[in-house]
Amino acid sequence: MAHITSPLPADKQKIVGEALQGALIDLLDLSLVGKQAHWNLVGRNFRSLHLQLDDIVALARSSADSAAERAVALGVNPDGRAATIARDTRVQQLGYGYVEDAKVIEVFTEILGSMIARMRERIEATDDADLVTQDLLIAVTEELEKHHWMVQAQR
Amino acid sequence: MAHITSPLPADKQKIVGEALQGALIDLLDLSLVGKQAHWNLVGRNFRSLHLQLDDIVALARSSADSAAERAVALGVNPDGRAATIARDTRVQQLGYGYVEDAKVIEVFTEILGSMIARMRERIEATDDADLVTQDLLIAVTEELEKHHWMVQAQR
Amino acid sequence: MAHITSPLPADKQKIVGEALQGALIDLLDLSLVGKQAHWNLVGRNFRSLHLQLDDIVALARSSADSAAERAVALGVNPDGRAATIARDTRVQQLGYGYVEDAKVIEVFTEILGSMIARMRERIEATDDADLVTQDLLIAVTEELEKHHWMVQAQR
Amino acid sequence: MAHITSPLPADKQKIVGEALQGALIDLLDLSLVGKQAHWNLVGRNFRSLHLQLDDIVALARSSADSAAERAVALGVNPDGRAATIARDTRVQQLGYGYVEDAKVIEVFTEILGSMIARMRERIEATDDADLVTQDLLIAVTEELEKHHWMVQAQR
Amino acid sequence: MAHITSPLPADKQKIVGEALQGALIDLLDLSLVGKQAHWNLVGRNFRSLHLQLDDIVALARSSADSAAERAVALGVNPDGRAATIARDTRVQQLGYGYVEDAKVIEVFTEILGSMIARMRERIEATDDADLVTQDLLIAVTEELEKHHWMVQAQR
Amino acid sequence: MAHITSPLPADKQKIVGEALQGALIDLLDLSLVGKQAHWNLVGRNFRSLHLQLDDIVALARSSADSAAERAVALGVNPDGRAATIARDTRVQQLGYGYVEDAKVIEVFTEILGSMIARMRERIEATDDADLVTQDLLIAVTEELEKHHWMVQAQR
Amino acid sequence: MAHITSPLPADKQKIVGEALQGALIDLLDLSLVGKQAHWNLVGRNFRSLHLQLDDIVALARSSADSAAERAVALGVNPDGRAATIARDTRVQQLGYGYVEDAKVIEVFTEILGSMIARMRERIEATDDADLVTQDLLIAVTEELEKHHWMVQAQR
Amino acid sequence: MAHITSPLPADKQKIVGEALQGALIDLLDLSLVGKQAHWNLVGRNFRSLHLQLDDIVALARSSADSAAERAVALGVNPDGRAATIARDTRVQQLGYGYVEDAKVIEVFTEILGSMIARMRERIEATDDADLVTQDLLIAVTEELEKHHWMVQAQR
Amino acid sequence: MAHITSPLPADKQKIVGEALQGALIDLLDLSLVGKQAHWNLVGRNFRSLHLQLDDIVALARSSADSAAERAVALGVNPDGRAATIARDTRVQQLGYGYVEDAKVIEVFTEILGSMIARMRERIEATDDADLVTQDLLIAVTEELEKHHWMVQAQR
Amino acid sequence: MAHITSPLPADKQKIVGEALQGALIDLLDLSLVGKQAHWNLVGRNFRSLHLQLDDIVALARSSADSAAERAVALGVNPDGRAATIARDTRVQQLGYGYVEDAKVIEVFTEILGSMIARMRERIEATDDADLVTQDLLIAVTEELEKHHWMVQAQR
Amino acid sequence: MAHITSPLPADKQKIVGEALQGALIDLLDLSLVGKQAHWNLVGRNFRSLHLQLDDIVALARSSADSAAERAVALGVNPDGRAATIARDTRVQQLGYGYVEDAKVIEVFTEILGSMIARMRERIEATDDADLVTQDLLIAVTEELEKHHWMVQAQR
Amino acid sequence: MAHITSPLPADKQKIVGEALQGALIDLLDLSLVGKQAHWNLVGRNFRSLHLQLDDIVALARSSADSAAERAVALGVNPDGRAATIARDTRVQQLGYGYVEDAKVIEVFTEILGSMIARMRERIEATDDADLVTQDLLIAVTEELEKHHWMVQAQR
Repeated sequence: MAHITSPLPADKQKIVGEALQGALIDLLDLSLVGKQAHWNLVGRNFRSLHLQLDDIVALARSSADSAAERAVALGVNPDGRAATIARDTRVQQLGYGYVEDAKVIEVFTEILGSMIARMRERIEATDDADLVTQDLLIAVTEELEKHHWMVQAQR
Repeated sequence: MAHITSPLPADKQKIVGEALQGALIDLLDLSLVGKQAHWNLVGRNFRSLHLQLDDIVALARSSADSAAERAVALGVNPDGRAATIARDTRVQQLGYGYVEDAKVIEVFTEILGSMIARMRERIEATDDADLVTQDLLIAVTEELEKHHWMVQAQR
Repeated sequence: MAHITSPLPADKQKIVGEALQGALIDLLDLSLVGKQAHWNLVGRNFRSLHLQLDDIVALARSSADSAAERAVALGVNPDGRAATIARDTRVQQLGYGYVEDAKVIEVFTEILGSMIARMRERIEATDDADLVTQDLLIAVTEELEKHHWMVQAQR
Repeated sequence: MAHITSPLPADKQKIVGEALQGALIDLLDLSLVGKQAHWNLVGRNFRSLHLQLDDIVALARSSADSAAERAVALGVNPDGRAATIARDTRVQQLGYGYVEDAKVIEVFTEILGSMIARMRERIEATDDADLVTQDLLIAVTEELEKHHWMVQAQR
Repeated sequence: MAHITSPLPADKQKIVGEALQGALIDLLDLSLVGKQAHWNLVGRNFRSLHLQLDDIVALARSSADSAAERAVALGVNPDGRAATIARDTRVQQLGYGYVEDAKVIEVFTEILGSMIARMRERIEATDDADLVTQDLLIAVTEELEKHHWMVQAQR
Repeated sequence: MAHITSPLPADKQKIVGEALQGALIDLLDLSLVGKQAHWNLVGRNFRSLHLQLDDIVALARSSADSAAERAVALGVNPDGRAATIARDTRVQQLGYGYVEDAKVIEVFTEILGSMIARMRERIEATDDADLVTQDLLIAVTEELEKHHWMVQAQR
Repeated sequence: MAHITSPLPADKQKIVGEALQGALIDLLDLSLVGKQAHWNLVGRNFRSLHLQLDDIVALARSSADSAAERAVALGVNPDGRAATIARDTRVQQLGYGYVEDAKVIEVFTEILGSMIARMRERIEATDDADLVTQDLLIAVTEELEKHHWMVQAQR
Repeated sequence: MAHITSPLPADKQKIVGEALQGALIDLLDLSLVGKQAHWNLVGRNFRSLHLQLDDIVALARSSADSAAERAVALGVNPDGRAATIARDTRVQQLGYGYVEDAKVIEVFTEILGSMIARMRERIEATDDADLVTQDLLIAVTEELEKHHWMVQAQR
Repeated sequence: MAHITSPLPADKQKIVGEALQGALIDLLDLSLVGKQAHWNLVGRNFRSLHLQLDDIVALARSSADSAAERAVALGVNPDGRAATIARDTRVQQLGYGYVEDAKVIEVFTEILGSMIARMRERIEATDDADLVTQDLLIAVTEELEKHHWMVQAQR
Repeated sequence: MAHITSPLPADKQKIVGEALQGALIDLLDLSLVGKQAHWNLVGRNFRSLHLQLDDIVALARSSADSAAERAVALGVNPDGRAATIARDTRVQQLGYGYVEDAKVIEVFTEILGSMIARMRERIEATDDADLVTQDLLIAVTEELEKHHWMVQAQR
Repeated sequence: MAHITSPLPADKQKIVGEALQGALIDLLDLSLVGKQAHWNLVGRNFRSLHLQLDDIVALARSSADSAAERAVALGVNPDGRAATIARDTRVQQLGYGYVEDAKVIEVFTEILGSMIARMRERIEATDDADLVTQDLLIAVTEELEKHHWMVQAQR
Repeated sequence: MAHITSPLPADKQKIVGEALQGALIDLLDLSLVGKQAHWNLVGRNFRSLHLQLDDIVALARSSADSAAERAVALGVNPDGRAATIARDTRVQQLGYGYVEDAKVIEVFTEILGSMIARMRERIEATDDADLVTQDLLIAVTEELEKHHWMVQAQR
């Protein structure tokens, strides 16, 4: 079966592959938990948060796609299957049922904050391994930090 | 905390809620497995299938959103969290790594075929309980069956 | 003068005509009372509600148009004159002057809730008489129930 | 409860408020009677008039919105409820049922002609009270007079 | 050679296949006869009818496409060849040469009226066999009835 | 009844009229046979051909419209009725049922090749009779030849 | 002062220059007389003709621009000044004041008919002198003949 | 023959009619002379002026249309025929042939400057006669003055 | 150096120039203070106010541009340099650092309220000097008053 | 390997093939030299010429594509490789480094002028061989002549 | 009151905050001085420079917004008030009144040149402190350098 | 003659200039060889590859433009003339005539693979010299690597 040759040597490919797979799981689960909150939300700020969560989901989906396509372009197989996400995710989970607006703000402040920390570690890890991947992670992080601020600003 | 009142009596709400939750899990996992194949695909028909899988993912995402919003409008909490999908999904899973074009066609023929069968059971189940929900499920099924044909036609 | 021949026998035409005329009055008055609140609204959630009310008015206007055009296509004259609306409406009315955001949420939860109940009666009534009209009413009801949820979620 | 402060002194506010409320009722009823004719129309010029009436309705709706938002911006509560329209309207009413194209041309020539006369009185009345409102009324009148010509030209 | 598996059992597949093939012939011939009139039309209402006929042709073409794709999705081969249309059509034919506007209105009132009657038989026939197909036929019929009214309204 | 005066003398009008009527039948049948293949296609290249056939159908439809409108502008009645197409067409026909991708490529290479030959005869025939019509036929032929190449290139 | 060099020899430049200047005057006056009728029109077909005349004016304006830019590209100065149009025009003029719809149809049938005849002379005249200019005139004539048919068809 | 009733008394109608007819001639000739310069322009600033002149022509054409439609809405027949423009225009004329960029700037500074002076007289004249017309003339003048500045700024 | 000639006599030019320069400073500072609040905002209504402030900034920027371009078209040099704004502004200033949503509503109610008062003085001042400028100021004021209402409505 | 059959006999194919290959080299080199000037341009008219050169490059690219696709549709292999362009081009070359605006105008007047002469020879050469190709070359030449004028007009 | 938590430690936050605040003042004053020149410009290159300055202003505004939003996302309060700009700006100022095109080119070459130098210092300063901010500054600098070239090229 | 001042010292300018000139030649020749294959392609995957090659050409063209404009912004003259490309290119060349799909995949895998290697050397070379240029090269490389994967995946 065909496989994709990598422009990177094996050791760098490994580092970059782990960073991208980690980002992929973070972003796919962000899209799932973002929709979960989008649907089960209640409270006075319903409409604003309902729309804002959809902006976050859109960002998460397109960023996940970029990360996964970057991985395969480097000869690394991305893994975004449901069981993999459930097993590996480090994203804080919501409980079942309705969730109030204040709670959403608190939880997503935490989710985005710790995801940004992990992203920054990946940016550092790829500095020697692949500047192109680093660039992609920086662009994603900038957007995550902007949303982090906008969610926080509502506390 | 606020909760949403339902226009349906409790027994009908329960039937409709189960149908919608089942559809939600089916559609969310279809979006995940569709992307997995979109990324790891190899073979002579790469470009055609790569694009076609994105059409299926787009359908799965927007249909999942409709099903979940319908559920909450009926006072039923949709559950689309990663752990729930991993636990409840009945969608056939792909293995890790590259997947050839012929294999993708075979797997998605099966995935869509059995999903359509479950959807038709849900259409029947909601016939007495809620015509509005049934209408939504019929529209989703029509699209799934069209993709089922188009995937199959490439065997 | 020309009049439009009906594809339905007289008894079915009567049932369907009443359902559509009832829906027409409901929807036209929803567009009027929606605008009234859109203009006279005050309170901390002003901007969100101001925009949401315009979404409801847009839905009401286009649905009213569909109902009326369906009626005339069946040989029934729709009646949407101001005096007819004022006489026949069953929609809860707002008082004169400013209306606070919490009040708007309470009133529109009630308005949409009871309108949905009447729509569901009309769906049932048209089941034997005309499936085409029933389909139109189902589509309108699905949208009303979505707005009902979104208004309620802000309580 | 909050109320909106007015940039105008009380006597001018009263004059301008009456002009805007009068225009609001005129325009809302024009949108209702326009739709009534749009639906119940018959005759050889059906298609042309059917489309032209929708242009008039679109003008009436957006102008009514401007007038009402102007009123509340001046601290005057606009009143566009169904009962108020039915009670205060000075617009000629259509009878129940089908209406022929020649009749529509005759009636709307009269409706627009007398509405223009009332609008010109309001333009004069606001000349000393508020030039901003006057400007808004002038813009609406220009459009009404254009439609008046186009309807007349078909006699 | 590949063939498309059907989600329906054989007896239901047969019923639905006949309904869709019948609709296909009706709609393809409507597109041909509509263009024939569009080109050979003369009379005072030329421009209005010329445009309206194109609306009908556009509806006929996209509906034919939906019906045929639905058929093949159910494992039934649609047949839209010229010889098949010419042999099986039940649509009233125009004579050769110019056709006056009044004649067009008369003929298309008849064409649409009897096509609607056949469509309604198909809606009934598919009620037990396949709700998804029925839904598609209902949507087409609603549009045909709207055009039936609009053509009639010009008599 | 009105008839359209021709800017051409009678002998030239006859030549041009025959060329346009011939082109019309060719193009209308190309649109029918193209759709037939679009629907009944199977094989590995399904998606690419399915889309390419729709491009050919779109070309055929808009070119047929141009040819027919040109004819009537010259005082010649175009005839695009189903029976006329079935009687006069010189386009190779498809059998009933599924058609494999390789077969479609073979058949449409032949269909387009011989249609181009007929078009080139018409271009020559109109050289002395009407340069405006010739120009229209040249433009159509250029597009047919481009599709002829693209279909062939897949053998 | 700069002047534009011509790719044509002097005798051919003269022939082509006269053809383009003649077309320019025809088209500019068509745009003026078209607007005159657009504004002063009365009668039952007001709306259809009012729109159709604007289509003709748009064609006349863009064609005049093409002809004039073609002239200057060949080193010939186009002259579209008011006095030149008034002196050289061969277009039939309208009287002052209202003009009825039947009259407009009659006059524009004549205007377009004789303009087409002059255009065909110019097409012939440029056949030896410049194929590029001939191509431009053919394209304009095709559009004029289409409008000629559409205006005539309403008699 | 139908004629359009005026919302103005005869004396005011006369004043307003003269102002609008004067503006119409000014604006139509501005569109002709603007195109004349657009085509025959030479010099180092060719491209900038060529584009700027088209902006002026577009303004002149749409303003002329507004003025003429306003006139007929008041029961006054606008007259925009070539002979009328040639006879009544007060716009400075260009000579035949190429015109240099510096000359264009000088001439259009003069043309726009004196046209603005006439427009300001018309604004004054309509102050007592019709505020709606005055408003239209003010809007046109504002745009003319902006172009006057932009042309001048290049001296 | 070139300077722009004015269509106004010197005394009127002076009055209008002062009005426009005053409006320019008001509007430019509104754009700066609006952005300052847009960035430093915190509180539960963050998202709604964050968006609303950007609407105000967009209005301020485009209105400032209109005022300045109007000034230069009248031969008056607009002055929008940072030092001039800082020296001449009469807009209430925000302190350094975060600003809560309730505070923003209070401050912008005041800012818009007193700016409207100054605008109304300018409208009066230009009544005899230049109706065109007055018209521009009226249009700006109408928009400012609408925002004044919408900000106030949230108290 | 497949090769494309030609609708032309061998002698005509040879003539047309040479004309198209010649045009292809002309147009591809025009796109390269146009970009070279676009980047290295200096002088007072920088911005106007910078934009105009991009218009010329866009024309050259799309025309080259049409010529090459036409060639292959006739069974002739187009050759647009760098070495072929460098060897066969007859386009005047720019020196290395900055190029002043006056120089650009002089060079491109020459480049376009001689390219037009070659194009006109190709138009003549294809007159007997293939009218479809001739038509394509005429359309390209018309655009080149328009740019030739616009560049020249700036001398 | 809420404040925004920073993903950076205090020392890095300080460095990055100063860089962003410096960039903010530079960019806001660039937008003000750019508009000042846009309005007061005179000279032969008026139109080109007038448009180019608006491009620069648009870049300055959107870059200022990015810098300020980045600052607040890092817990640093941006300060863009008029008094702060006037006090801290290092941008060369224009004198009062008209400014000639050659002068604008000279001044903006200097303004952009020294702003780029300051930006490059900020890029260096943030290299250890925050790669995300550095990336944002790099993107802004790339655009400033492109405009620097384009302004210079006109000397 | 004007020349563009550089924000970089001479040694860094030299390094960056060589990197950008090398990238420019790579990208321009990629656009030429991509079109060559786009036109001369044959084989079963014709349509997919034909479209994919156009995507690669579009990327090559816009990236070449960015690289060249970046060079001149740094005071380095880009050289993209045909003779320079032919002399300096390191891109593998295609032979004359038809090229089969499998061959295209093999050749472009090699072309993109070695171009990526050269790009990565340029990224390294510019790390100390100019981060802004490095950023531009990173963005181009990311896109080239994505296409490298997509071409390879079809082997």
